[in-house]
Amino acid sequence: MSRTIVIIGGDAAGMSAASKAKRIDPNLEVVVLERGEWVSYAACGLPYYVKGDIASLEDLVAVPAGTFRTKRGIDLRTSHEAESIDPAAKTVSVRSADGTYSQPYDKLLIATGGRAVRPPLEGMDLEGVFTFQSMEAGGAVREYVERLKSNRDGNSNPQTTAVIGGGYIGVEMAEALSAQGLKVHLFEMASHILAPFGQETARMVEAHLQDQGVPVHLNTRVQSLVTGDSGRLEAIETHEESIAAGMALVGVGLTPNSDLATRAGLQIGTSGAIATDEYGQTSDPDIYAAGDCAEARHAVSGQTAHVPLGLTANRHGRNIGSTLAGKPVPTGPIVGTATLKAFDLEVARTGLVAPREAEKAGFDPVVKTVSAPSRAHYYPGGSTLQIQMTGDRRSGQLLGAAMAGREGVAHRINTVATALHARMTVEQLEMLDLAYAPPFSPVWDPVLVAARVLGSALTR
Amino acid sequence: MSRTIVIIGGDAAGMSAASKAKRIDPNLEVVVLERGEWVSYAACGLPYYVKGDIASLEDLVAVPAGTFRTKRGIDLRTSHEAESIDPAAKTVSVRSADGTYSQPYDKLLIATGGRAVRPPLEGMDLEGVFTFQSMEAGGAVREYVERLKSNRDGNSNPQTTAVIGGGYIGVEMAEALSAQGLKVHLFEMASHILAPFGQETARMVEAHLQDQGVPVHLNTRVQSLVTGDSGRLEAIETHEESIAAGMALVGVGLTPNSDLATRAGLQIGTSGAIATDEYGQTSDPDIYAAGDCAEARHAVSGQTAHVPLGLTANRHGRNIGSTLAGKPVPTGPIVGTATLKAFDLEVARTGLVAPREAEKAGFDPVVKTVSAPSRAHYYPGGSTLQIQMTGDRRSGQLLGAAMAGREGVAHRINTVATALHARMTVEQLEMLDLAYAPPFSPVWDPVLVAARVLGSALTR
Repeated sequence: MSRTIVIIGGDAAGMSAASKAKRIDPNLEVVVLERGEWVSYAACGLPYYVKGDIASLEDLVAVPAGTFRTKRGIDLRTSHEAESIDPAAKTVSVRSADGTYSQPYDKLLIATGGRAVRPPLEGMDLEGVFTFQSMEAGGAVREYVERLKSNRDGNSNPQTTAVIGGGYIGVEMAEALSAQGLKVHLFEMASHILAPFGQETARMVEAHLQDQGVPVHLNTRVQSLVTGDSGRLEAIETHEESIAAGMALVGVGLTPNSDLATRAGLQIGTSGAIATDEYGQTSDPDIYAAGDCAEARHAVSGQTAHVPLGLTANRHGRNIGSTLAGKPVPTGPIVGTATLKAFDLEVARTGLVAPREAEKAGFDPVVKTVSAPSRAHYYPGGSTLQIQMTGDRRSGQLLGAAMAGREGVAHRINTVATALHARMTVEQLEMLDLAYAPPFSPVWDPVLVAARVLGSALTR
Repeated sequence: MSRTIVIIGGDAAGMSAASKAKRIDPNLEVVVLERGEWVSYAACGLPYYVKGDIASLEDLVAVPAGTFRTKRGIDLRTSHEAESIDPAAKTVSVRSADGTYSQPYDKLLIATGGRAVRPPLEGMDLEGVFTFQSMEAGGAVREYVERLKSNRDGNSNPQTTAVIGGGYIGVEMAEALSAQGLKVHLFEMASHILAPFGQETARMVEAHLQDQGVPVHLNTRVQSLVTGDSGRLEAIETHEESIAAGMALVGVGLTPNSDLATRAGLQIGTSGAIATDEYGQTSDPDIYAAGDCAEARHAVSGQTAHVPLGLTANRHGRNIGSTLAGKPVPTGPIVGTATLKAFDLEVARTGLVAPREAEKAGFDPVVKTVSAPSRAHYYPGGSTLQIQMTGDRRSGQLLGAAMAGREGVAHRINTVATALHARMTVEQLEMLDLAYAPPFSPVWDPVLVAARVLGSALTR
């Protein structure tokens, strides 16, 4: 009898695992339980759908459901929600339109993803207030934007939009909504936006957002979302002021969907995500977890971390798929590399950037920030790139970097990410033989300049 | 009495060494002997001067001569040519406008650079025929271009130009001269252009050159450069045809200026460049060499190599400057990373790319070529990137890569370069946590895709 692999969740991690397992061992029974209708979609593309760069939500789908079913032989069941796991009986209780049934498994992969944090704000349920994670939410936001633009509701100031939370999604949505002609205000509780990118890099982005007509309200806690007679959102209230707004986008974080795992008695990490070993195995040897619901191991800190990003979900899903099909592959450590576009800026980070982050991992961080030209000084069209780089005083080890600039940031960060994987010292980074041609870089690449400045500070 | 460091050559390697040595130990006597008038200039920028992107040759100067003399306290002597070295007496014989004198040294750095190879072609001395290395040559070429454009000579087809040799400079000059409105023909003796980039990448550039109106003549040896009554170049003759041309740019390679070193009895490497140890020291313990005249150590092959590039000259000069001032720093190995712009293409390479190159270093190469999108599939404006990647069958070690595409190539190559420095396997490269955002990359970066395809071939 063939073995049955059950996968809960049909996005990046789940479908990567299903495809890989089936490719390695076509005799496997692979069942995917997806509670929604969408599978294998790129949530990262949603801001560009809202912006209008992408015509339809379908464009964000990497592989259509039909392909998984017919070409890849995967038993993909959409609108099937896993309600509970019984690890002793090795079954999943599933609810579908036809009722509830028990699905047995030999091996189980939990790939339930994450969900947008809903802060305990008065007015969160008002019409015009959105959190932003699912395809459905993306569709609803774009529809609402169209409605605001046509201004058929007679709101006092409908075309002002509040983005609450200055994370990746908040910044990307500020760009998207501005491009749609809306006036955007960005609210951030902390002293700078983009927490994982460190203060220096965030400052550059904040200034750029302001230049682009997006007021950035730092150290500002939104108190309530306010309506009037319309029953829809009409204003945002902070401790200082009230701003008329026809729409609010709340993006204050992502919570791992680890409830199923918790109720099944699996070990949960300190981050709230499902604890896994280097092969993605949970505390139950027959249950694995991958993607935004699971923890990963950080190559620099050596500790577990919850960094919900697309590549990790795809890779961990894929590698667990291989393991489940009998070819064990470690999921692989992360270094927390991320990039985003903020209007005309490229912004990126990798490793441990902020001093506090490095201290928590037991390092004695030294941080330096440099500005360097993006091209040879004489080559037209260049601009200034800012790099913040962190190293460990005791060992000289490179710990991380964040950068921002108008060009050459999104790929340049990978030089640092690769050096982190290799556990290079700052001195070794400075000695790298990197590419140089006047249109693309000065002879000393900005990464080398940053490494040199940080290296001097470390050996002093 | 203070020690005297003498440096022969006032470009990247020489001036970097002089500046660094003097900064570490201001009491040093640092004498730089430069036979020309230009110092510290970026020869890499010359094609863009010819193209018209850069207004004046002075713009290519990184640091003016006056700054070295007054601000950095360097005894910089332009129009002073070193004629010979006497290692026993520790003196250099120098010729200047005032005659010849003997310059004593405690430590000597030879940074004499390279010169364009002059092939034994009939007609090399004709007016309108140029090799291309010095600032003077850059100025002369641009002047001649202006003359051709004004067409005041009444040549039959003056506005056709031949570029002989399909290396970096040849390709960059094809772009520059085309931008000036000249019709360019590119002649290459070998079966593909850009030898160090491998055939697959070269093919993409050749096709792009053709698309841009530059006929590429492969396997074509130019036989002679022909004149008529004018005494200037009028045509190029190959074994097949004669093409009317008002100008020829001959770029068939760079020879290290190692004559001084040879005559001084220093050890010369198999490449013809000066042999050095890991600190840049030659076979004479008081004499060092750096830049285009010297060999370096290749981190992948473990062998010596002559790869004359700007960053190496700057870094090796700088580190030798530190060593000479009493703070020893190794010059650092190279991996042969290079990039260039060819019209709308970015082209790059690192490590050992072509199978023959890898075999010569004792590897058993496996080579795979992949095409992958430069951005997320749904994000507008993306294009196709081609990557050729090489690994060793026995060890799984990553050996090198070359790539070409319309965006994201020049910095992406540095991920591979960094992995080479770290001696990663192809499998380790595939596991890197690289940056992903839809505007800049698909979730699986093209480098990861190439590593996966090559990795599968290696483990088969």
